[in-house]
Amino acid sequence: MLGRNYQEVPAEPVSDGITIRWVVGQPEGAPNFAMRVIEFEPGVVFTRHQHPYEHEIFVLEGKGVAEGPEGEVPMRPGSALYIAPDELHGYRNTGDGVLRFICVIPHQEE
Amino acid sequence: MLGRNYQEVPAEPVSDGITIRWVVGQPEGAPNFAMRVIEFEPGVVFTRHQHPYEHEIFVLEGKGVAEGPEGEVPMRPGSALYIAPDELHGYRNTGDGVLRFICVIPHQEE
Repeated sequence: MLGRNYQEVPAEPVSDGITIRWVVGQPEGAPNFAMRVIEFEPGVVFTRHQHPYEHEIFVLEGKGVAEGPEGEVPMRPGSALYIAPDELHGYRNTGDGVLRFICVIPHQEE
Repeated sequence: MLGRNYQEVPAEPVSDGITIRWVVGQPEGAPNFAMRVIEFEPGVVFTRHQHPYEHEIFVLEGKGVAEGPEGEVPMRPGSALYIAPDELHGYRNTGDGVLRFICVIPHQEE
């Protein structure tokens, strides 16, 4: 059993104003999927993109929107989102503080 | 893309003082794993048990411990835990309020 505060995991830069922490994943022995904590600084946008794997998301802090094919879905603390494989999606921090969310993905082949 | 507050999902009883909400899973089309939000009332214990699938956990609120083969791991807001397949584990709410955490598991065969 492993336990640690997510802040003990180094925050890796994704792009300007976006970081990711891989809090549980293959290095910890997880066989199937990885849990990451992602942070967006205020005003930051991650433009729409797609990939062949799903996201299961839970918002911890802040205010934002996820943009999908059918419009926007609000992101608030307590929001649970599902983004299907190959679905177009982007994110935007619309609040004054950090937008922080958990995003779980299946392991990808190297 | 699906988005909703976890509180919109019905809380199903697990045992006395423990509920579970399946916030993303097979009914939403998720192909690989399910995200649940689990709540323990103060003082509630879930005794040690094991099963052949892993847990990836993130604590949202409260104070507790997870009991593993090598002792206790603290559960506090921001704690990320990994429990391996077949590892013995239990939980205990040691605080005055609810212990709420996310627990992700792979889909099980029916």
